[in-house]
Amino acid sequence: MITQTPALDPQRLRQLDAWWRAANYLSVGQIYLYANPLLKEPLTLAHVKPRLLGHWGTTPGLSFIYAHLNRAITDHDLDMIYIAGPGHGGPALVANAYLEGTYSEVYPNIAQDEAGMQRLFKQFSFPGGIPSHVAPETPGSINEGGELGYCLSHAYGAAFDNPDLIVTCVVGDGEAETGPLATSWHSNKFLNPVHDGAVLPILHLNGYKIAGPTVLARIPREELEALFRGYGYRPYFVEGEDPAAMHQLMAATLDTVVTEIQRIQREARADGFKTRPVWPMIILRSPKGWTGPKFVDGKATEGTFRSHQVPMADMTHPGHLKILEDWLKSYHAEELFDAHGRLNAELAALAPRGERRMSANPHANGGLLLRDLRMPDFRDYAVAVPRPGSVDGEATRTQGEFIRDVIRLNPQSFRVFSPDETASNRWGAVFEVTDRCSTAEIIPGDDHVGPAGRVMEMLSEHQCEGWLEGYLLTGRHGFFSCYEAFIHIVDSMFNQHAKWLKVCNQIPWRRPLASLNYLLSSHVWRQDHNGFSHQDPGFIDHVVNKKAEVIRVYLPPDANTLLSVTDHCLRSRNYVNVIVAGKQPSPQWLDMDAAIKHCTAGIGIWPWASNDRGDEPDVIMACAGDVPTLETLAAVELLREHFPELKVRVINVVDLMKLQPASEHPHGLSDADFDVLFTRDKPIIFAYHGYPWLIHRLTYRRTNHANLHVRGYKEEGTTSTPFDTVVRNELDRFDLVADVIDRVPQLGPRAAYAKQAIRDKLIAHKQYIAEHGEDLPEIRNWKWQGA
Amino acid sequence: MITQTPALDPQRLRQLDAWWRAANYLSVGQIYLYANPLLKEPLTLAHVKPRLLGHWGTTPGLSFIYAHLNRAITDHDLDMIYIAGPGHGGPALVANAYLEGTYSEVYPNIAQDEAGMQRLFKQFSFPGGIPSHVAPETPGSINEGGELGYCLSHAYGAAFDNPDLIVTCVVGDGEAETGPLATSWHSNKFLNPVHDGAVLPILHLNGYKIAGPTVLARIPREELEALFRGYGYRPYFVEGEDPAAMHQLMAATLDTVVTEIQRIQREARADGFKTRPVWPMIILRSPKGWTGPKFVDGKATEGTFRSHQVPMADMTHPGHLKILEDWLKSYHAEELFDAHGRLNAELAALAPRGERRMSANPHANGGLLLRDLRMPDFRDYAVAVPRPGSVDGEATRTQGEFIRDVIRLNPQSFRVFSPDETASNRWGAVFEVTDRCSTAEIIPGDDHVGPAGRVMEMLSEHQCEGWLEGYLLTGRHGFFSCYEAFIHIVDSMFNQHAKWLKVCNQIPWRRPLASLNYLLSSHVWRQDHNGFSHQDPGFIDHVVNKKAEVIRVYLPPDANTLLSVTDHCLRSRNYVNVIVAGKQPSPQWLDMDAAIKHCTAGIGIWPWASNDRGDEPDVIMACAGDVPTLETLAAVELLREHFPELKVRVINVVDLMKLQPASEHPHGLSDADFDVLFTRDKPIIFAYHGYPWLIHRLTYRRTNHANLHVRGYKEEGTTSTPFDTVVRNELDRFDLVADVIDRVPQLGPRAAYAKQAIRDKLIAHKQYIAEHGEDLPEIRNWKWQGA
Repeated sequence: MITQTPALDPQRLRQLDAWWRAANYLSVGQIYLYANPLLKEPLTLAHVKPRLLGHWGTTPGLSFIYAHLNRAITDHDLDMIYIAGPGHGGPALVANAYLEGTYSEVYPNIAQDEAGMQRLFKQFSFPGGIPSHVAPETPGSINEGGELGYCLSHAYGAAFDNPDLIVTCVVGDGEAETGPLATSWHSNKFLNPVHDGAVLPILHLNGYKIAGPTVLARIPREELEALFRGYGYRPYFVEGEDPAAMHQLMAATLDTVVTEIQRIQREARADGFKTRPVWPMIILRSPKGWTGPKFVDGKATEGTFRSHQVPMADMTHPGHLKILEDWLKSYHAEELFDAHGRLNAELAALAPRGERRMSANPHANGGLLLRDLRMPDFRDYAVAVPRPGSVDGEATRTQGEFIRDVIRLNPQSFRVFSPDETASNRWGAVFEVTDRCSTAEIIPGDDHVGPAGRVMEMLSEHQCEGWLEGYLLTGRHGFFSCYEAFIHIVDSMFNQHAKWLKVCNQIPWRRPLASLNYLLSSHVWRQDHNGFSHQDPGFIDHVVNKKAEVIRVYLPPDANTLLSVTDHCLRSRNYVNVIVAGKQPSPQWLDMDAAIKHCTAGIGIWPWASNDRGDEPDVIMACAGDVPTLETLAAVELLREHFPELKVRVINVVDLMKLQPASEHPHGLSDADFDVLFTRDKPIIFAYHGYPWLIHRLTYRRTNHANLHVRGYKEEGTTSTPFDTVVRNELDRFDLVADVIDRVPQLGPRAAYAKQAIRDKLIAHKQYIAEHGEDLPEIRNWKWQGA
Repeated sequence: MITQTPALDPQRLRQLDAWWRAANYLSVGQIYLYANPLLKEPLTLAHVKPRLLGHWGTTPGLSFIYAHLNRAITDHDLDMIYIAGPGHGGPALVANAYLEGTYSEVYPNIAQDEAGMQRLFKQFSFPGGIPSHVAPETPGSINEGGELGYCLSHAYGAAFDNPDLIVTCVVGDGEAETGPLATSWHSNKFLNPVHDGAVLPILHLNGYKIAGPTVLARIPREELEALFRGYGYRPYFVEGEDPAAMHQLMAATLDTVVTEIQRIQREARADGFKTRPVWPMIILRSPKGWTGPKFVDGKATEGTFRSHQVPMADMTHPGHLKILEDWLKSYHAEELFDAHGRLNAELAALAPRGERRMSANPHANGGLLLRDLRMPDFRDYAVAVPRPGSVDGEATRTQGEFIRDVIRLNPQSFRVFSPDETASNRWGAVFEVTDRCSTAEIIPGDDHVGPAGRVMEMLSEHQCEGWLEGYLLTGRHGFFSCYEAFIHIVDSMFNQHAKWLKVCNQIPWRRPLASLNYLLSSHVWRQDHNGFSHQDPGFIDHVVNKKAEVIRVYLPPDANTLLSVTDHCLRSRNYVNVIVAGKQPSPQWLDMDAAIKHCTAGIGIWPWASNDRGDEPDVIMACAGDVPTLETLAAVELLREHFPELKVRVINVVDLMKLQPASEHPHGLSDADFDVLFTRDKPIIFAYHGYPWLIHRLTYRRTNHANLHVRGYKEEGTTSTPFDTVVRNELDRFDLVADVIDRVPQLGPRAAYAKQAIRDKLIAHKQYIAEHGEDLPEIRNWKWQGA
């Protein structure tokens, strides 16, 4: 396949190598140098940073690829971004952005002169400077690379609906061992050459992780090739260590794969989608720490794990300074930069122009490209609720109709992502306008599967999250629909995205992105059929550990509130929005006007369910989440029956962050407002969707916290009935009434009678389900009777 | 490869098919029947459960495999366990355990007669009964299958150091899409045929997930074969739907692969390990819902996603009852069971004997095989601490020496698992006695890599966790060493293991297992060099959401306390132990005697650091974690300098669960004991390792909670210095002193002076690091001067 005449003539070979040397010089400088950036003076310890941090090992390989991609961009007029899976090779990406001029454009203080170079070097991994990894601070990046595993999912997410974009994704052989990366190769079964861009994966084998060898570098060549053919790629090998030979091989290979990508796209766009193409990929095998010191202290360094971080960490050790000086001089910076530290014009001219520079490509600063969604009016999907509790509805089914029309109105900028749970979570309406996406084989009988589908389903929460992140980071919109328990699979991916957003908020040139929206359904209270392994409401706890400025949590109790919240989330920017909502038929409480008011406030008294009528109540029944709301209202009805004169105030919480002090979260209620709602001294029985202690953690500074009693999920579950699941966790109506009785002293002698009645009900419940396997008819058919 | 003469003679073919039919009958019965188990009466709605739950789709395939494995076990005298990745096919595993008699042995109420069969049917997915998935309740299982992705890692973990065991692992094509599963195929590079057992993966392609098609069922045969050859296996295909043909093919294939496994093992054990063998695997392609209804309501059902759960969910629908009755009768139960519901003797005789039954194999109830570790005396590794703070030590390095000798003393029952972080986390001593394990290519210059290594390193936290779980569940011991931030990658795996343990505690025949031990190092306060992406102490928050009876969290402040905690954890049973400890040189506080006392109490006053001398203190300085302890003691010294008469009590917490009320956790202090330590009304400044609100969540019911002020990590980080990282989060000595000044009113006029001095110090710090890139010498070299 690869041409036998050299791909590069002598001049271009020399130029390419010079760019690479310049990038390597700047990388070593970043890791080591505090001063003397052009080595105008003999190197002394005073010129070296006191604390040496960074990762050299992967860096020269990343720059080698960068230099060659620039050549290909120029020769083939490509629109390309670069995702560095080995993001700890931060110096490489920073160096190339600096050589391209982008770095000085966004950070004018890091100019393209000697002083700027000195600052470039000093700032790296230095207090007040920049992180050692590719990070939000790095122009051209959408992938941190601190936590490994997600680069290829990000790359495919970026390529969806970007037909003119090629996303080059360097996958380190360490990262390739992670689970998320191992499955993300299969993303090619979801990429459509007609309307999507291309992903060019480059598997970079340099043989070692931090200390141990990598799996893929240590299997026979025929297994390696079979593996990637099995993943559906055509692998091209670029292997060696001699720079001149490697330059020719890499250039020729890039020409081949670019031509192949363009052929695939041309044919698909001319003839329509026929069959999944076999996309090309590159396997680059090069020494770890390529061009670095061959030996340090008598130990082989280049090509070994000893190059992973800083090859010589202790510079006071005899001889190390000399090794560093020789190493730096081996790049012949004097041929690359003039006496003022400016890149030679010949080399500077190698960079692509303007936004074709990968460091300046707007796709890597997606907010620049982001446009508002065309939105249907969510009020058009309202469930008619003549009076609270009078009708049943399936909240996520209604939401699915709204989402359907968002898909319809935004055919190129909105997708939904789910681990095969779109239908299960009741978003079936979306299949009226689109399919599940698959470019693999489709057979008769498949249910709404097509190569242009906008529902991205792979049974991998990692893929869904990674694709969606890549899609959002390049300026589009989306939604992740997931079973609540299994969203924990992406806890750490959420962490990294939330951290990314937090840092972006501090970088003026990073423009706001569409929020990452989660629908968590099939939630803890309705996994009675799948049992204990499917019950876990802890993602909320996980989320609220991150910076308040980037996280939002909503628990709409019915369909209309869910619609209002969904509309709000789709219009928001730079947040992670977590929405927990049920899919089962359940009572609807608020008509659309009331729902909008309630969601706007985020928390409020439900007067139609309360009987305190402006007085100080005897007890507050608070609730957050659909099932807790149902049980609370059923408990309120029981209280009215037993204690008609008891003054009950019902408070429903949609926006969980309202509970936090205003000093902790921008949505937080002031203490005064909180006291008005929850009183300063009355008992509060709080029925909460998740682990009860979260409510305490959010409210422990509130005046009336000592009187707060929370019920929620306490890890009691098995395969049982829906109502039994709430009973096992004492969140049920009867236990809530018992909680009131225990905490309101003035109930008098009827308290004992009521408690007995409740105990009897719970016994009847247990007996009934043991015999019938379903809940008592009076539970299943319960309806709110109103005031 | 496969023999052309039929593998099964007519009688054996008939028997095998009869066993399969019996299992299928019992599976359909479990999903549908409430009564009339032998269909002695015409089927009516009253015989059907009111609520139909379960997953039929995968079930017949799982039973097909089970029947064939039993034949192979008998013919080849195998010691085998069965891991069902599609664990939602619970009815299959329960049915086969019942046919083998094991079920009735552990649950005598579910006898092998008509009444027992009726109970077997009714209990499935029924309140008070058993879960719908393979679960701890299922004899023979070590894998839940509720959350997908981990079956093959579990299988390899079970096979390590079990030379005579074959672990058959059925991987569903849905599960195969998950990341953890996709990388777990590479486990064969870590399995040594000399001293490990074998894993026989069976990829079960039935084409659909819940609703969508699966990736691996929709790629060309040549890609599928290449993929598994690339993963290093020799795949054997068993494809079709005609039972008779499939029986022959499966039997012949199993004979082939068993022979191949035995040959590999025989050669390796005769000649020693030479090279990684190409292990066989089976790719079984069979219809989803095989033998179920072909059509329901005019829609194709067998072989489609409509078979995933209950093919006919609404039994009141006309015709459905008849379909069910015909379906049940198609298995001809009258040929399989006698009139009393007892399995025919001919069929019963097909089951392997005793512990050779996969449902009764002791490896699947590992506590039966668990033996105590041979333990070195941890006191022998003590760091000499002449007086508190007088020497520096690296806690995890010391721990590594202890772990080294645990490995040495237990060469067949203890391994350590890490994503390439063993050396980084300073357990380098282990390489004095063992290697990193690899059966892939090893080249000169590799650092302690060998095919018999007991350090299991793959850059996949999922693999490490899955392997370790499989190793523990089969009765062995281990330790997981991980960077703190990235342990979140296995949040959901931890969830499932904790749930498994919680349920096991309620099952008498499940014997206790060795605890799952985590060392979390390279922790949040010492990731200043890697930056924000590497900083996350939230795993503790995640862990404490699980049942108190199975989780423990330790924060030893120095080497000797870490040794004591490690020894305790290695001796414990059925817990998840989380140990957070530092790897950097830092002051040592307690000699071994004091460390043992402190760890035994779990929390205590450090009198040598306090000056309240039995009086009521003016302020309590509490700390948990090594860096918070260091900063607290430095703050105490500053307080003495500025306010010599201020009575300070220093409390250190090793066992975090001591803070919870005794009613919430078995380790919790009584309220009286808590009040003695923390007083009822004095200010408490608590320096905590993780997110500060966790301390509030644990203590909100304590008397003195209103005076508790917690400092911890609040998501402020970047690449900076160690001390700057604590400053950014206001956990540093100066901010702690400021907190005291703000909360102790009686400090008088010197308070203002002290605050000014503190502010000056923080400014000096900022200036120094901006220039020098490292912390002030007085910070770096700080030593506790003692009382």
